[in-house]
Amino acid sequence: MHNTLNINRNFQQNYDIIIQRYMSYTDKMLRDGALEGKNIVVTGGGSGLGKSMTKYFMELGAKVAITSRNLEKLEGTAKELEAETGGICLPLQCDVRHYDQVENMKNQVIEAFGTVDILLNNAAGNFISPTERLSANAFDTIIDIVLKGTKNCTLAFGKHWIDTKYENTNVLNIVTTYAWTGSAYVVPSATAKAGVLAMTRSLAVEWAKYGMRFNAIAPGPFPTKGAWDRLLPGDMKDKFDLSKKVPLQRLGEHQELANLAAYLVSDFSAYVNGEVITLDGGEWLKGAGQFNLLDQVPEQMWDMLEAAIRAKKNK
Amino acid sequence: MHNTLNINRNFQQNYDIIIQRYMSYTDKMLRDGALEGKNIVVTGGGSGLGKSMTKYFMELGAKVAITSRNLEKLEGTAKELEAETGGICLPLQCDVRHYDQVENMKNQVIEAFGTVDILLNNAAGNFISPTERLSANAFDTIIDIVLKGTKNCTLAFGKHWIDTKYENTNVLNIVTTYAWTGSAYVVPSATAKAGVLAMTRSLAVEWAKYGMRFNAIAPGPFPTKGAWDRLLPGDMKDKFDLSKKVPLQRLGEHQELANLAAYLVSDFSAYVNGEVITLDGGEWLKGAGQFNLLDQVPEQMWDMLEAAIRAKKNK
Amino acid sequence: MHNTLNINRNFQQNYDIIIQRYMSYTDKMLRDGALEGKNIVVTGGGSGLGKSMTKYFMELGAKVAITSRNLEKLEGTAKELEAETGGICLPLQCDVRHYDQVENMKNQVIEAFGTVDILLNNAAGNFISPTERLSANAFDTIIDIVLKGTKNCTLAFGKHWIDTKYENTNVLNIVTTYAWTGSAYVVPSATAKAGVLAMTRSLAVEWAKYGMRFNAIAPGPFPTKGAWDRLLPGDMKDKFDLSKKVPLQRLGEHQELANLAAYLVSDFSAYVNGEVITLDGGEWLKGAGQFNLLDQVPEQMWDMLEAAIRAKKNK
Amino acid sequence: MHNTLNINRNFQQNYDIIIQRYMSYTDKMLRDGALEGKNIVVTGGGSGLGKSMTKYFMELGAKVAITSRNLEKLEGTAKELEAETGGICLPLQCDVRHYDQVENMKNQVIEAFGTVDILLNNAAGNFISPTERLSANAFDTIIDIVLKGTKNCTLAFGKHWIDTKYENTNVLNIVTTYAWTGSAYVVPSATAKAGVLAMTRSLAVEWAKYGMRFNAIAPGPFPTKGAWDRLLPGDMKDKFDLSKKVPLQRLGEHQELANLAAYLVSDFSAYVNGEVITLDGGEWLKGAGQFNLLDQVPEQMWDMLEAAIRAKKNK
Repeated sequence: MHNTLNINRNFQQNYDIIIQRYMSYTDKMLRDGALEGKNIVVTGGGSGLGKSMTKYFMELGAKVAITSRNLEKLEGTAKELEAETGGICLPLQCDVRHYDQVENMKNQVIEAFGTVDILLNNAAGNFISPTERLSANAFDTIIDIVLKGTKNCTLAFGKHWIDTKYENTNVLNIVTTYAWTGSAYVVPSATAKAGVLAMTRSLAVEWAKYGMRFNAIAPGPFPTKGAWDRLLPGDMKDKFDLSKKVPLQRLGEHQELANLAAYLVSDFSAYVNGEVITLDGGEWLKGAGQFNLLDQVPEQMWDMLEAAIRAKKNK
Repeated sequence: MHNTLNINRNFQQNYDIIIQRYMSYTDKMLRDGALEGKNIVVTGGGSGLGKSMTKYFMELGAKVAITSRNLEKLEGTAKELEAETGGICLPLQCDVRHYDQVENMKNQVIEAFGTVDILLNNAAGNFISPTERLSANAFDTIIDIVLKGTKNCTLAFGKHWIDTKYENTNVLNIVTTYAWTGSAYVVPSATAKAGVLAMTRSLAVEWAKYGMRFNAIAPGPFPTKGAWDRLLPGDMKDKFDLSKKVPLQRLGEHQELANLAAYLVSDFSAYVNGEVITLDGGEWLKGAGQFNLLDQVPEQMWDMLEAAIRAKKNK
Repeated sequence: MHNTLNINRNFQQNYDIIIQRYMSYTDKMLRDGALEGKNIVVTGGGSGLGKSMTKYFMELGAKVAITSRNLEKLEGTAKELEAETGGICLPLQCDVRHYDQVENMKNQVIEAFGTVDILLNNAAGNFISPTERLSANAFDTIIDIVLKGTKNCTLAFGKHWIDTKYENTNVLNIVTTYAWTGSAYVVPSATAKAGVLAMTRSLAVEWAKYGMRFNAIAPGPFPTKGAWDRLLPGDMKDKFDLSKKVPLQRLGEHQELANLAAYLVSDFSAYVNGEVITLDGGEWLKGAGQFNLLDQVPEQMWDMLEAAIRAKKNK
Repeated sequence: MHNTLNINRNFQQNYDIIIQRYMSYTDKMLRDGALEGKNIVVTGGGSGLGKSMTKYFMELGAKVAITSRNLEKLEGTAKELEAETGGICLPLQCDVRHYDQVENMKNQVIEAFGTVDILLNNAAGNFISPTERLSANAFDTIIDIVLKGTKNCTLAFGKHWIDTKYENTNVLNIVTTYAWTGSAYVVPSATAKAGVLAMTRSLAVEWAKYGMRFNAIAPGPFPTKGAWDRLLPGDMKDKFDLSKKVPLQRLGEHQELANLAAYLVSDFSAYVNGEVITLDGGEWLKGAGQFNLLDQVPEQMWDMLEAAIRAKKNK
């Protein structure tokens, strides 16, 4: 793929000699100002993919409120992104599992921005583990963050939009490719994300009359700094290299997700409703549930991973 | 449909001459003794479809433990079914939302039956309501009963089967046709049931190595005595007659569900794994989300329904 | 799995003491006479899974017409099955790609049986090959046999049922697990079978008013004597052992498919309409497209396979 | 929707001060030059949605070859679009049902453009009719145009790309929302489009190694000048107003489809592979098969429609 900045002289039929480079998938997609005038809330916006999406939304002209449990980290991210983009980013502490905190967060955003146009439910949690090693409580935690969290934010903003008759809004939910086929070794996440997907589709029909749209993105493997990467010894890292499972043989780039997310929250996707778009290079079509391959992990490795996580918690 | 009594002489391997007629869909499907030697737990088994499935399992030779929050009702059902079938039915109080109660129930069944072969997660709850009329708490209640309840029972029995190396077991989950497409006006249920479906598929892959299978049934409209039927005034009842949405123009019969469920929990379906079978006469293919049609219900009717439910609760 | 002969005394309502053993998945599922009075057409019924289903239908009391291009083989099968079951089997030559042959076949069955109640579209063809090695013509052949063949039979019998107002009929189509996710290396088959699935679902809605049901089965790996098995050298056979891709770690048994097919064509499944039931031990949920793993086959092996097939053709 | 003119000063890299307003869904989405250097083939590009997509591709810098059976119409469209966009549009006669014509068309494009980067399979045909009123031949015609046509073009360009080791190409297929659920009254189209979808997904996995991507769009109701609109008497037009079935209560705009198509053929979607994106305002989630509602059309109306179509053909 031609990705290098490639200044060349290109004689084209109807044009003069121009300096040109072909677009690449790491470029920014939408025309400038595409999100001008939009106020957006991104849960889990302080780091990772949430941060990447937030940054691009700001570059396109949106004001963005980012939320998570860690206010300090949020404030650092907000400052950094404002410096880089010249835009506005509002950090707000909120544990999405608690409806009162969500209501409170909503009120603060409304006070700061006046209105909110878009909610991006991105906050999530996950355990990569054989299911029999999970307690009922651990399983609940993922359901609470992912499913109840998304529900809490959706209810809070949805009711607000209905009450104030504020239209042309939308909700974008980040799910997973295994929300549909399921996946071994991430069962709480599969369970919770499938719930989010059904909520997306249900409300796309029910609340369309209030001028809301609901969509989702199912990202495949994107580079993150998760526990998995840190904990795996070298040879395991190679064996469980997720990029090998992707027909395109690579992980995704953050800007690719940001491009798609920007499209889906913008008015350009005004006729997309109730849809989940998979962005995984074809991974699920090649091998179904993303973590099914972990049936190759021996029991001792799981023991080791567990011990490592426990040790980190107790620090 | 030809259901006429047709007397003919039929010499069968181990039986005498018997009276035979063409089969009908209200007949019992499996050969006698198909569940002989099987011990089954049916949550929500005290009434409705859970009771119908329990009865047929008993007729096929299984011992069945039924659970719900209402012990009195369970005891009545158990007595009734034992009288009718000559089989064994064990009533056990259990609120599936609480893992300790589920563990306790599991221990009681094991003590009574020695082993359990099959878990049927049938307990459920539902609100038919515009989503904006639901509190965050009300929404949580459905997630807790349907999704966490199913998860609790699955974890408890799954871990038990793994610990005791007891194989050839299976879990059957009752979901809905709108677990996949979603549905307006029953969003908590759609959300929770979609989660159950993903859990079914995930564990079908992950826990197959322990000799477990996981499947689901998505029933369409079956006659029940729910709030909806009781509360709708006559003309609304006709307008929202669910049988009209079914290509086959009728509701399902309880024995039809019992037949399918018996197949799926029996060893005859030993190669069916991770599957959800829809039993709805084609309803979802004709009109997608089962309750989408309720967008025709006027606001005053919802007010009325709410008031009626509240009145009933306060009695 | 407990499959051992287990003699016990079992007093049942209407029978005497009988010899009883626990059921196994290789046992026959439906009660005797379940298809009494039914006349069935099975395309591709002369061998393989078509033959196994035909045999079980006959054991359950149905009269069955079997069709294929090879009359001699059909006649052998018919004779064999009549001897084994004491039932009636009618062999009829028919290339399903040609509508006039299908019409002719239909007329012969009607003449012989008076009526037809059930059509099982089982005739199929497949190439296991990198798609770039297929000619446009080769691709067409599979579309013609699988998709147009199924369409021809469906149209012929469907119009006949509508014209004669003959109700309570049904069509069962054999598709594949990759009709939904697709699969590499069997693209013509994936393409054609997906078409059959959409036809199944469309007519389940449209023709329900004429008393017809339409369903499908998606079988996973069942033991057959295909080119693949014969041609693979020993070490490849092990590498591409399809049973390893199945969570249950085994291939299906013919009787398991026959049991499911018998259920779906019988009146016991009268409320199942527009449904496709997957019978694959969870294979597609574990690894998606059934033949995706063939990306491990080196080019020389494909050359060899091609040469072998060509040699066989020219004999 | 806020679409108000909002004048602000916006210094952009290569442009002067311009007049800027908030984006609307009828605006053009991608940044300028997004398809610069891309050569595209659009089958069925002479009119309707194919023409709209072609125009936008040209505006974004692509050279486009358009094909159909009607050369005269193609030439008119090409001239019109070149005048409007200043781009290059090559009209090429080709009946996609015939592989030799497709090969010939491919050679002409390669000769004119040097290379081809993108194939958009948009040519299609459809009958809106009760299935029992269709001949086997009429059904075949739709399979041949839609399914075999798409297959022919895909094979021709795919083999060419493999032979010449030309990478970073992609194929975009236009399918329908009922490729998955099926639909009554358009069964040949549902059948053929489902086949196209499975081909899309299969090759997304198989041919990824050759640097190709495969995706699809499933458009809901877009305004067209089809037989249906022309033939329906006024009151029927209202009754079967497709926009009423859409949660968003409107038809799609051509630019909305063009925006999505441009994204999917551009390098911005380089990590989208094997995906079908639905663009229907949520229509299928609300009511499943797009034409299921036609069960309300009385037989006489179908008679009338048939007569009208026949009359037109004989002119």
